[in-house]
Amino acid sequence: MLKEKLENVRNKIPLIHNITNYVTVNDCANILLACGGSPVMSDDIDDVIDIVSICGGLNINIGTLNKNTIPSMFAAGKKANERSLPVILDPVGVGASVLRTETANRLLKEIRFSVIKGNISEIKTLAFGSGMTKGVDADVTDTVTTENLSGIVSLAKKFAKETGAVIVITGATDIIANSEKAIVVRNGHPMMSKITGTGCMLSALIAAFVAANRDSIYEATVTAVCAMGLCGEKAFARMKKEDGNSSFRNYLIDSVYNLDGVSLESGAKYEIC
Amino acid sequence: MLKEKLENVRNKIPLIHNITNYVTVNDCANILLACGGSPVMSDDIDDVIDIVSICGGLNINIGTLNKNTIPSMFAAGKKANERSLPVILDPVGVGASVLRTETANRLLKEIRFSVIKGNISEIKTLAFGSGMTKGVDADVTDTVTTENLSGIVSLAKKFAKETGAVIVITGATDIIANSEKAIVVRNGHPMMSKITGTGCMLSALIAAFVAANRDSIYEATVTAVCAMGLCGEKAFARMKKEDGNSSFRNYLIDSVYNLDGVSLESGAKYEIC
Amino acid sequence: MLKEKLENVRNKIPLIHNITNYVTVNDCANILLACGGSPVMSDDIDDVIDIVSICGGLNINIGTLNKNTIPSMFAAGKKANERSLPVILDPVGVGASVLRTETANRLLKEIRFSVIKGNISEIKTLAFGSGMTKGVDADVTDTVTTENLSGIVSLAKKFAKETGAVIVITGATDIIANSEKAIVVRNGHPMMSKITGTGCMLSALIAAFVAANRDSIYEATVTAVCAMGLCGEKAFARMKKEDGNSSFRNYLIDSVYNLDGVSLESGAKYEIC
Repeated sequence: MLKEKLENVRNKIPLIHNITNYVTVNDCANILLACGGSPVMSDDIDDVIDIVSICGGLNINIGTLNKNTIPSMFAAGKKANERSLPVILDPVGVGASVLRTETANRLLKEIRFSVIKGNISEIKTLAFGSGMTKGVDADVTDTVTTENLSGIVSLAKKFAKETGAVIVITGATDIIANSEKAIVVRNGHPMMSKITGTGCMLSALIAAFVAANRDSIYEATVTAVCAMGLCGEKAFARMKKEDGNSSFRNYLIDSVYNLDGVSLESGAKYEIC
Repeated sequence: MLKEKLENVRNKIPLIHNITNYVTVNDCANILLACGGSPVMSDDIDDVIDIVSICGGLNINIGTLNKNTIPSMFAAGKKANERSLPVILDPVGVGASVLRTETANRLLKEIRFSVIKGNISEIKTLAFGSGMTKGVDADVTDTVTTENLSGIVSLAKKFAKETGAVIVITGATDIIANSEKAIVVRNGHPMMSKITGTGCMLSALIAAFVAANRDSIYEATVTAVCAMGLCGEKAFARMKKEDGNSSFRNYLIDSVYNLDGVSLESGAKYEIC
Repeated sequence: MLKEKLENVRNKIPLIHNITNYVTVNDCANILLACGGSPVMSDDIDDVIDIVSICGGLNINIGTLNKNTIPSMFAAGKKANERSLPVILDPVGVGASVLRTETANRLLKEIRFSVIKGNISEIKTLAFGSGMTKGVDADVTDTVTTENLSGIVSLAKKFAKETGAVIVITGATDIIANSEKAIVVRNGHPMMSKITGTGCMLSALIAAFVAANRDSIYEATVTAVCAMGLCGEKAFARMKKEDGNSSFRNYLIDSVYNLDGVSLESGAKYEIC
């Protein structure tokens, strides 16, 4: 299953339009190329309609949200909806500012998303208006544990039902849910939190996988989440004594570049929950 | 010839003003430093005139074109023209949106460029309004082949004549033309298309080479194109089993840093056509 | 002393709000993570107040100054002052344009900075309006030498007195001064000038060190400057034959990631002057 999803990305080379932050945009572009996709970045209100018209998917990330590009997010999102393209939302730091929270809520109201991906604080903020966001990281009081897992899965399913989107909650354990089912992914490595942009790169990756697997959004999302986590493990395994987070970033993108379907199938650690 | 052009960059340390996209800007800055130049980025309408006044060249790249910085491109371009500085245009994604196409056409009308560099789709769009751009990549139907090479060389010469600029058409085979002559460069490696920013970095490199070799724009451009391609080959040769596109990016910039005139002369593969 | 300052960063994980340029922003985020801090970038006028309200420090960098974010710098700076948070100023390229000079001077007037860090040209421009800035680099006529060191130290102390900030003048020799005392740091390596963003990364690092050591701003700043220089030496020592500036950038951030208090204490080369 996962193998086929990855191969579809490699064969179809989906062009992904990213309206994203300027912090991790280069890493997003390179990880899109690494997985077999093709990136294009465009955020001017007079540019996005034309760009989204030639793309296979749209990735909206509010990491450095600014009012110049908010209308572009709406215009691109609506055009993508009109074209029935997959649209991904990465609500970076939602809950940390009124601007981010209001914009994300408005986006949810006006745009149909295929996938919404955030840490537990971000997803709780979107679902309830009550997450504890510490800047762009989840608050410790929001950690997913064995005890609260089933509650969080229920929340994810409910939010999936409300939005019609696949919900991805990232953390040491990742949860992927639609309105009816959920999967827990146990890939990944703590080192992934020592670089900026792991989350943004995952959203870009999801966009590529979903765009290349339009008839199986849920499975494509699971595949992207497993792939990212597994590549994090592979990148860590490659680290030498003097390597730090900057080398890890390179190894992570390199791992995505070199990922093959067989090792993805064998390395993916997911279970239905 | 090539050796001297490179040494001029290293000795003169040209300061290059870049108005460029936020995706690959860091790589452009680092490759400018790698080749021996010095980068400065500035795009506010109230900043660019002062900055271009202390620079040796201007590099305009429309990769993430937005309306805030379009007037800055014109103001900086006009000031650079006034100072007779070399100005480079990289019309990223022209043809993919009306905003990009109209802006690029207006830039061509109002600014004198020393060098215009794009893939075949971008150059055809500028010259005829008829290229097939797929986002920021050339469309496959636009590939340069042995069969259509002479036609494309004619187009490049004609466009060079119209604009007064040296025209660079990038691809597996690169073409550099002025109104009277053309050279084909066969350096480079397919891996260069697996990272974002190879094209942007080349434009930055051309700006440095041209700024340090003001009396031989055409030869300086050929040198920069050969240097970039050769460094792509060297970077690929350095790749180990686990390396992917992220490591390749580092190796590419590293190769420019370590490039010496002798290996450039011996490794450059160009022919008059 | 230095060991404790570093450990405080690692233990307190200060969240640093950066309003910075789009050229080196990714490196700033990754070096903040490397040293043990946590980065957040936000520059919209309607976002910055909320973000600075949850942060431990604010880092203002005018590297790609544009008029959209100037009001954000003032709003964030004032809020940070109100909350008595440390605020760092990196006046990149001040003196190179009227916009940069006027904005920096206004910032000095309206915001209380804990630390102001620049090269000698930038600091002279701020202190006297007379530095020789060549783009974003110090002019050679401004170099710190054995002969002019004491004069520059006096300038730094005087400017520290006027502003109430710790002044950092970077170069082959770094000077850190408050109104009463000064320290010279002789760590670092010329290779650090061959990548973009060393200065920006240092400012981010200072912000993290100062935010985690609120009762000893001066010592925390000295520690950050020593740490950066020492990591530059370590990064250079790691370079292999084919490595260039791009690998050096990775090694530099990696070195910060792997820096421990003991090697910082033993490797730091500073003296009271």
